Amino acid sequence: MLILVVNCGSSSIKYKLMDMQQETVLLSGLSERIGIVGSRIKQESHRGEELVLEQDLPNHKVALESILKCVTDAKYGAISDTSEIKAVGHRVVHGGEKFNKSVVIDEELIKVLEEMSELAPLHNPPNIVGIKTCQELMPHAAQVAVFDTAFHSTMPKHAYTYAIPYEYYEKYKIRRYGFHGISHKFVSRRAAEILGKSVEELKIIVCHLGNGSSISAVGNGVSIDTTMGFTPLPGLPMGTRTGDIDPAIVPFLMEKENLSVGEVNDVLNKKSGILGVSGLSSDFRDLEQAAEQGNKRAELALSMFAYSIIKYIGAYTAALGGLDAVVFTGGIGENSKDMRDRVLKGLAYTGLQIDEEKNNSRGKEVILSKPGAPFAAMVVPTNEELMIARETRELLK
Amino acid sequence: MLILVVNCGSSSIKYKLMDMQQETVLLSGLSERIGIVGSRIKQESHRGEELVLEQDLPNHKVALESILKCVTDAKYGAISDTSEIKAVGHRVVHGGEKFNKSVVIDEELIKVLEEMSELAPLHNPPNIVGIKTCQELMPHAAQVAVFDTAFHSTMPKHAYTYAIPYEYYEKYKIRRYGFHGISHKFVSRRAAEILGKSVEELKIIVCHLGNGSSISAVGNGVSIDTTMGFTPLPGLPMGTRTGDIDPAIVPFLMEKENLSVGEVNDVLNKKSGILGVSGLSSDFRDLEQAAEQGNKRAELALSMFAYSIIKYIGAYTAALGGLDAVVFTGGIGENSKDMRDRVLKGLAYTGLQIDEEKNNSRGKEVILSKPGAPFAAMVVPTNEELMIARETRELLK
Repeated sequence: MLILVVNCGSSSIKYKLMDMQQETVLLSGLSERIGIVGSRIKQESHRGEELVLEQDLPNHKVALESILKCVTDAKYGAISDTSEIKAVGHRVVHGGEKFNKSVVIDEELIKVLEEMSELAPLHNPPNIVGIKTCQELMPHAAQVAVFDTAFHSTMPKHAYTYAIPYEYYEKYKIRRYGFHGISHKFVSRRAAEILGKSVEELKIIVCHLGNGSSISAVGNGVSIDTTMGFTPLPGLPMGTRTGDIDPAIVPFLMEKENLSVGEVNDVLNKKSGILGVSGLSSDFRDLEQAAEQGNKRAELALSMFAYSIIKYIGAYTAALGGLDAVVFTGGIGENSKDMRDRVLKGLAYTGLQIDEEKNNSRGKEVILSKPGAPFAAMVVPTNEELMIARETRELLK
Repeated sequence: MLILVVNCGSSSIKYKLMDMQQETVLLSGLSERIGIVGSRIKQESHRGEELVLEQDLPNHKVALESILKCVTDAKYGAISDTSEIKAVGHRVVHGGEKFNKSVVIDEELIKVLEEMSELAPLHNPPNIVGIKTCQELMPHAAQVAVFDTAFHSTMPKHAYTYAIPYEYYEKYKIRRYGFHGISHKFVSRRAAEILGKSVEELKIIVCHLGNGSSISAVGNGVSIDTTMGFTPLPGLPMGTRTGDIDPAIVPFLMEKENLSVGEVNDVLNKKSGILGVSGLSSDFRDLEQAAEQGNKRAELALSMFAYSIIKYIGAYTAALGGLDAVVFTGGIGENSKDMRDRVLKGLAYTGLQIDEEKNNSRGKEVILSKPGAPFAAMVVPTNEELMIARETRELLK
């Protein structure tokens, strides 16, 4: 069964064509700079052939049409006709309270998604455009929405409610939703497999650390808490996002700096995080280099990030009532041995000991903790596309 | 040595006259509704005599003059002349970055305090009025400022820095300060005494739970982190304050509800917390009663509060790298066996067992954990006035 996985961002589309019999990737590609000068598509096949198509892509529809041409290209493609694609699995950022699992999309659902765009004004609209365009271009294929929030819909009410006037929850649905759910779900399940246990019997903390970062507490296989909230702003400090701050800073800054609502949102989401603290870069690799060379504010930003992770691991151990595994994933979690080292050294008080050699690896599944550790510390590279394809396959059964 | 402890609020003055040879309270009193109709002073002596003075108190100066008359009253007072008072210890809410310990006040310092009022516009101005008036009325006595932030000045930079543009720290001193420091200091020291250890060798988490609530992590005798921040808003949900929320909720609400900076501050500080969630009351006793009678939103608010405490105890255990004692204090911490029970049940995974009978007490020093517990759980009633008097005495040595 061939499934196309599509992740539409505001100016990019990531895609993977997968054969879900063996869960193999036939093609993976990225269309960049949609609607911007210099747009292009880059596609790689499982045979290692690379296709680069420099082409004007004024909008998502043109981009998707071109992607389908690449997919069916006689030389670089993997199939001869799009009719071979049984279903398209779409990543949708915000499912609100309505969508606590993946769904096959019909006209009715598109309307509901459109109503919900208010909760994720930057992310949901391109997701919807992607769905509509794929419906148009592949009317024979089922369209499935897989939500980044759905995995966290199992949080108990005392974990997702904010201590603000309750009417704002009723009126605007202001509550904790959490994001990166597709990743947290995939990684928690894969970690359990590696440990040779059922995910239902484990207490797992997943640290998805990338340009956006979030941690989740997974007990009995379900998310019971996560660091992101109503929006992807809170929790850990990120590339350019604040993470947790005193909310009173927001009106204070607006008054002092004479900022509008839009401007303060910009500061909080685009000028803060490790970029704001370091004044250097939003990229953790730049900061690690600078910190090594003695840059104090780069070091400060990194130590704030590590400290925040250490505190959340402690908090979620208490929330779960114990801990079986801490799992690192995402660009930083998979690749930065320095950041893993900082975090795991902060957990040494538990008796955890780390195999330094095993930690000296990038992007690989590995158990970092030495035998006899109070809990497993491990790296599990995330695979959101595979998770989306699996959810899509499940729904078509 | 006689020391008068003065705590000036916006419309009230609490005071205690203490003999610091034996650390005994000679008089304690409260002046209420200053500047409001129905103002009065209520004073109790160590002999149990109560004086109630119903009198128009248009401002803090008149109130302090009347307080000094009560203190020197032939029948109800404890001294014949205010010249017997060697020093006045003032509680000052915000010491900013300048004051990391208590100080004897001179003209220069008053200026600095006045400049700093911007950081605590509700609290510091009445504190300053109190200091100036006492200087005027008791020119012979030393005036000492004891800051609610000073105990937290030992936090490391990675704990007090926010991941916002660094220039806002430099320009406006936006950082975590923390509050309730006088209480956290007193309680951590008293807990160590009860445990028969030096505070320097212990890892202590102090839960100051009252109408305003904060938790601190005390290692080697100093505060390394605390839940309140730039202002007293973040951390645990409180009577009417939000505690931690997604900061993006602030601009979202301002836009949706068309709120000004002042109005949104009001919502966050005065209409949120357990009042906002329950829709009932900001008083935990009302909520415990309502929850018992089946009120679901009262129960939700209480479980949110307990869950938040449990998570912070986990987080601070990780921050401290271990845990020797969890100490409850403040109105709720000292008196609510229900809230202590909720929190300690959430820590049962550590092996902690509680003596139910000992938990069935109010306002008393008690060790709740059974022998062999992984850490001590205990109640230590706070005594901020005694702490202020001790700091004052130390400075005069």
